[in-house]
Amino acid sequence: MTDLPDLPRLLVADAVRAALKEDLGRAGDITSDATIPADVPARAVIASRRPGVLAGLALAECAFREVDPAVGFVALRRDGDRLKRRDVVAEIEGPARAILGGERVALNFLCHLSGVATATRELVDKVAHTGAKVCDTRKTLPGLRAFEKYAVRCGGGANHRYGLDDAILIKDNHIAVAGGVAAAIEAARAFAGHLVKVEVEVDTLDQLREAMAAGPDAVLLDNMTPDELRQAVRIIGGRAIAEASGNVTAKTVAAIAEAGVDRISSGWITHSAPSLDLGLDIAIG
Amino acid sequence: MTDLPDLPRLLVADAVRAALKEDLGRAGDITSDATIPADVPARAVIASRRPGVLAGLALAECAFREVDPAVGFVALRRDGDRLKRRDVVAEIEGPARAILGGERVALNFLCHLSGVATATRELVDKVAHTGAKVCDTRKTLPGLRAFEKYAVRCGGGANHRYGLDDAILIKDNHIAVAGGVAAAIEAARAFAGHLVKVEVEVDTLDQLREAMAAGPDAVLLDNMTPDELRQAVRIIGGRAIAEASGNVTAKTVAAIAEAGVDRISSGWITHSAPSLDLGLDIAIG
Amino acid sequence: MTDLPDLPRLLVADAVRAALKEDLGRAGDITSDATIPADVPARAVIASRRPGVLAGLALAECAFREVDPAVGFVALRRDGDRLKRRDVVAEIEGPARAILGGERVALNFLCHLSGVATATRELVDKVAHTGAKVCDTRKTLPGLRAFEKYAVRCGGGANHRYGLDDAILIKDNHIAVAGGVAAAIEAARAFAGHLVKVEVEVDTLDQLREAMAAGPDAVLLDNMTPDELRQAVRIIGGRAIAEASGNVTAKTVAAIAEAGVDRISSGWITHSAPSLDLGLDIAIG
Amino acid sequence: MTDLPDLPRLLVADAVRAALKEDLGRAGDITSDATIPADVPARAVIASRRPGVLAGLALAECAFREVDPAVGFVALRRDGDRLKRRDVVAEIEGPARAILGGERVALNFLCHLSGVATATRELVDKVAHTGAKVCDTRKTLPGLRAFEKYAVRCGGGANHRYGLDDAILIKDNHIAVAGGVAAAIEAARAFAGHLVKVEVEVDTLDQLREAMAAGPDAVLLDNMTPDELRQAVRIIGGRAIAEASGNVTAKTVAAIAEAGVDRISSGWITHSAPSLDLGLDIAIG
Amino acid sequence: MTDLPDLPRLLVADAVRAALKEDLGRAGDITSDATIPADVPARAVIASRRPGVLAGLALAECAFREVDPAVGFVALRRDGDRLKRRDVVAEIEGPARAILGGERVALNFLCHLSGVATATRELVDKVAHTGAKVCDTRKTLPGLRAFEKYAVRCGGGANHRYGLDDAILIKDNHIAVAGGVAAAIEAARAFAGHLVKVEVEVDTLDQLREAMAAGPDAVLLDNMTPDELRQAVRIIGGRAIAEASGNVTAKTVAAIAEAGVDRISSGWITHSAPSLDLGLDIAIG
Amino acid sequence: MTDLPDLPRLLVADAVRAALKEDLGRAGDITSDATIPADVPARAVIASRRPGVLAGLALAECAFREVDPAVGFVALRRDGDRLKRRDVVAEIEGPARAILGGERVALNFLCHLSGVATATRELVDKVAHTGAKVCDTRKTLPGLRAFEKYAVRCGGGANHRYGLDDAILIKDNHIAVAGGVAAAIEAARAFAGHLVKVEVEVDTLDQLREAMAAGPDAVLLDNMTPDELRQAVRIIGGRAIAEASGNVTAKTVAAIAEAGVDRISSGWITHSAPSLDLGLDIAIG
Repeated sequence: MTDLPDLPRLLVADAVRAALKEDLGRAGDITSDATIPADVPARAVIASRRPGVLAGLALAECAFREVDPAVGFVALRRDGDRLKRRDVVAEIEGPARAILGGERVALNFLCHLSGVATATRELVDKVAHTGAKVCDTRKTLPGLRAFEKYAVRCGGGANHRYGLDDAILIKDNHIAVAGGVAAAIEAARAFAGHLVKVEVEVDTLDQLREAMAAGPDAVLLDNMTPDELRQAVRIIGGRAIAEASGNVTAKTVAAIAEAGVDRISSGWITHSAPSLDLGLDIAIG
Repeated sequence: MTDLPDLPRLLVADAVRAALKEDLGRAGDITSDATIPADVPARAVIASRRPGVLAGLALAECAFREVDPAVGFVALRRDGDRLKRRDVVAEIEGPARAILGGERVALNFLCHLSGVATATRELVDKVAHTGAKVCDTRKTLPGLRAFEKYAVRCGGGANHRYGLDDAILIKDNHIAVAGGVAAAIEAARAFAGHLVKVEVEVDTLDQLREAMAAGPDAVLLDNMTPDELRQAVRIIGGRAIAEASGNVTAKTVAAIAEAGVDRISSGWITHSAPSLDLGLDIAIG
Repeated sequence: MTDLPDLPRLLVADAVRAALKEDLGRAGDITSDATIPADVPARAVIASRRPGVLAGLALAECAFREVDPAVGFVALRRDGDRLKRRDVVAEIEGPARAILGGERVALNFLCHLSGVATATRELVDKVAHTGAKVCDTRKTLPGLRAFEKYAVRCGGGANHRYGLDDAILIKDNHIAVAGGVAAAIEAARAFAGHLVKVEVEVDTLDQLREAMAAGPDAVLLDNMTPDELRQAVRIIGGRAIAEASGNVTAKTVAAIAEAGVDRISSGWITHSAPSLDLGLDIAIG
Repeated sequence: MTDLPDLPRLLVADAVRAALKEDLGRAGDITSDATIPADVPARAVIASRRPGVLAGLALAECAFREVDPAVGFVALRRDGDRLKRRDVVAEIEGPARAILGGERVALNFLCHLSGVATATRELVDKVAHTGAKVCDTRKTLPGLRAFEKYAVRCGGGANHRYGLDDAILIKDNHIAVAGGVAAAIEAARAFAGHLVKVEVEVDTLDQLREAMAAGPDAVLLDNMTPDELRQAVRIIGGRAIAEASGNVTAKTVAAIAEAGVDRISSGWITHSAPSLDLGLDIAIG
Repeated sequence: MTDLPDLPRLLVADAVRAALKEDLGRAGDITSDATIPADVPARAVIASRRPGVLAGLALAECAFREVDPAVGFVALRRDGDRLKRRDVVAEIEGPARAILGGERVALNFLCHLSGVATATRELVDKVAHTGAKVCDTRKTLPGLRAFEKYAVRCGGGANHRYGLDDAILIKDNHIAVAGGVAAAIEAARAFAGHLVKVEVEVDTLDQLREAMAAGPDAVLLDNMTPDELRQAVRIIGGRAIAEASGNVTAKTVAAIAEAGVDRISSGWITHSAPSLDLGLDIAIG
Repeated sequence: MTDLPDLPRLLVADAVRAALKEDLGRAGDITSDATIPADVPARAVIASRRPGVLAGLALAECAFREVDPAVGFVALRRDGDRLKRRDVVAEIEGPARAILGGERVALNFLCHLSGVATATRELVDKVAHTGAKVCDTRKTLPGLRAFEKYAVRCGGGANHRYGLDDAILIKDNHIAVAGGVAAAIEAARAFAGHLVKVEVEVDTLDQLREAMAAGPDAVLLDNMTPDELRQAVRIIGGRAIAEASGNVTAKTVAAIAEAGVDRISSGWITHSAPSLDLGLDIAIG
């Protein structure tokens, strides 16, 4: 993986600090303060307990270093790497209290984001023989969108829009109020900046034909069967990006991809991805 | 459900505002701005698409009202209620742009928290014939801990500590540095305030016997078989709260509970609970 | 003007509160506190002192109401309206201290944003006989981008991208490192989500020809003469959006537009627009 | 320029971080991420494209270093220096992505603040043969007041009050409610701390005479002709600081200064100063 | 007391919200949640347990209303009022949980600020027969300066500067580096805006004579005996404000005031004022 | 003192930054900027002016370093140390402007927290011959709770709960609504997590007997005489922690302790502790 985006440092630091305050509360790690003297050193590793795809190392490192800048963190693997069980992904050394104080926050980020990457990769692998890319949605966990979308990239997926503001996605309600799909797309083009793309969601092939006449940049084919999708791709004929959504699972994704769509979007990879089990093993003193 | 805690208003407002800024970005909902005039009214309902347990209504309501205080939100169900498919949980009315602008944030909170409540309820129901309570851990999604722990309550579960600062949980590393479990508990008692409980994690019955001699408030029995747990409960003999953890699934939880423990803690109900599918149906104009 | 976007309420409130804290400091409006009793009422109007285009009413209203929610604010004109000298744009009533305490912040926002709208409108009017739209850049004043881009809309202009993250704009350095314009565009397409447009900046017609071969969504024709622009438009032939930039002034903009470009971007309308003079006239007691 | 104040580090960091978040959004600099590998180094210079006065180096440096602390920034000129066209003001080296990612924010601060300093200097130079100082007002851009007031210093100007809370400025409304100028000044003296100065705004020489009888620290002579100002200065007779305001332009300022006033305040130097054109030239790889 | 300044609403709200978050933590008022149903109403009064001076009603009201806007709060007394033991200062009604949830924060503000007002009033009363005013210093509790300075006003005191930025106070170190008191004052006058006053601290009468030659606005006579102060006042001769500081207690303050100084500054009234005992009596149901 | 808890770095940094902004305002330390060139170095010491107990070194160090990271700070004493008059607790060196700019904030934290530690130590010393520990309450100054509770530890005291959320404290109102003390404790046990302790406040021995029957973890014996306390301790018989509160002063505390209670809680040590006088002596140049 050499083509991952940079996660902006300021976003990482803000999220990690908030998470540490949430965990350390007003009094900090009282168990370690009670039982471990301030100057006891420790060494630790973070290792996978299950196979999966790694994502979120920058957040894990930041967690330890915000507790105490004296902590050293050396990554042995990179975001996007496939992990086997028991792969060591990072080595950490520093004051025992600091490592224990940052552990849970580091792992909470790392396990969740690696879970998203792993879930994404599962779908991506199943469509590797096609030209389709798996992408995310706006169905993300509040406060974590930028990180989850980064994790989708780590899993080999692609990103849909980041928010309501960076692309137009016209749905049935917009069409109804605007007076038809052509009117809605026209209104969108007139309204939006010239670097904003316009996508239209359709449920039927008839809607698709009507939409295509208005020249959208992309169409979202919602809840269609592989057969319908195949027809839809033919109707689109390369004039717009074809995105399929709805009922996307590890079982269905290959058939959807084989219908010839360009993108398959899944909310499940962000809102329901199970955590990837990674743990910290520490040797104190 | 009449015994749910109040979610502090200030926490709700902070989380919702941050999530809205994340979704609305710098330009807001450009699709609705382009296609729907400012004064068009709408009515909508939030309804379940799958059976489950409801959690997070206050966050959903707040999401719409922070976009526009003119939005009316009437809850028809309460947090903790069991939902069948297609149950309407809330009715909303107000400017169409405001309802569409708040929709995704409202649902992202509601679906995630209801997912946590539903996952919790699944385990809770399986141990209803025992005296055991299902509880959460600190394995929560960063920034969402207070809400996830509330959702666990909605699902009939109980809460473990909220952070590193509100209870003592002594693990093997603390014991090793402190010079034994008795020394660690003594250090904890000496250090902590008189309203702080002390729990000790043990892996074996021998460790348990040693720990019990030091008089902890609770013991965390990690990764024991039901048989071992049964013996552990006997050793504890009511002198401490018995908490089981490790390998807790819908399949194993009943057997664990039947071993006689007081608490069964599960990270899965917060870090890996699948989203509960709830949707918004809107009629504009 | 009926097609203006909604400014997200949360962004307005955050910016206004920060500005009020900046002006009120630690002790508040000590002059009014010293000379005007707390219960003295007042009525005021905001009126233009020069002709121009109005922008920012929501921020002005918010400024008074954040000082004291008891202030009433009635807008008589709308954002985007052309103002003559002495047009009254809003009527305000409430405690005299509150109106005086919010006055400067309200006017600082209103005069600056109306200045941006007025500057934009000046250029827009000069190209009204063509198909070109005037648009903004990222050369905005720190912290005010969303509001300035809104003001550009009030002046009849269009928006370029809002930040580094919502569209691709490939410049000479990116091309050099990527190994040519085709490689850069290909890398951008592979990297970015499917709703992200790709624009390429070119300085010469040769560069333009090379760029067009790679199929960008838009091209930024930098610092070209009207003649060069005319040739560029011919080369582009409707296959991409043609944007001109560089040396855009009230004197040059018509000639640039007449060359047939789609967009003319100007940093001047945001970073150097003179304030529009609006004032508050108050009657106390 | 050796007598410039220190800009408090915390204010600089807060403003720069907010501006970077505004520009980098949720996804960061996607163009550079797509086209430039993470480890490519670069060197750059910031140079003037027009003559002017420099202000804001600390903010520019901070912008690059908040993107990536590995960026090196060496200032070759100092705030307050007069720049010719093509003067290099700073040299920068570090990861290409970081330099490109911080460029726009750095320049937005630097060009605006240098614009303010340049506008100030233009007025200051025209009154250099007199004892008058040019000073600013509270007509600043929201969120940028501390920086703009610093830039005014860089241009050789002086500062008026920073907010409503650090000095008393009595205007006609305060006088009317307080029951006359003497009563207003007396109320102000009684109310304010002993280190707070009291200034009174007057429009006519009669008002001035009445005000002087009450012993203000300063008088603001609003919209008077040079002749009136000259008479006003005579009436004041050194017993208070004489400040002129209203209709202050590059054309009028000398005549105003020659009337013998101590201060000439201008809103234009902050709210309408055109940006000074500075650019970044980068060599990558 | 009719001449108190307005405490800016935004400052009040920010401080109260932070204090509530500090007290409610992540889980809120678990005692009330456990024992009192959500819909139980209550009525309460806040009453003094000791005589003193009231300060901080706005913060107390805000505390309850930020927990729940449904709480009604009626003040029966005003800030600055002298209280006897058992005076009722406010009546409160609303949900029992909300009143109990806001109680401690409301009282923590009210008791501390009333303590500051009471301590101030004690000194003020002792100098009432003189022309001296008691004033505060910058020795305030971090985060509470604006409120403590307001409380000093409630106690009949006056305010010194609010921070390092709103007035010049030259001490021995500044004088030493500047090259003498005259040079320091001259540098200050040249540097500071025309509405910034300059005070000089002196320890001896010789220093005072030297300082007076340079024309400061005020002099701080530090740690002088009443006799020395009397001589100092004579030397100053009304040409500057005379402020005494050092060793100011309830026992010494009258003698200091009788020496003829204008101001007596005391850090004790803010940094060491004992809390005034006020309590909340509640009737639930 | 080797058993002090770590103050979480993030809490320290947030509080110090807020305090510095409060003191430096918008313009910074204008006196030092006017009189001391930017490059003048200085050395300083912080020394006690009165005997007491030290607390808050981390905040003092942070204050200087947030003004300028170039400041060096070497602590010669540790938090919790007993100080005689004129003990040097830290040596500081760096730019004179930075040391003077951070001085007041550093001392405001240090003097207040050392005051809390000193007040605590005064009570602690008086009960050293007993088994009782002195502890704090929630009567803390808003925004400073975590630091004041840390200072109580520095003075040899113990901590009560940190907020409403980390332990149950049942008072008369809760009991009344819940239907008796047994019902209230039962409700609390059912509601709270298994690591949350339950304390009950009682005013009489009859209430105490009733409460003990319900098995609380601790009882708060409010406003009892030493004789009553002695009887109460006998009734409790080691089955719960016995905490005395009310009328705790340096005069009464020994008698209270000798009654055999485990904890004596005092609001006075946080809300009314006089500042400990520490000062900064600086040598510039």
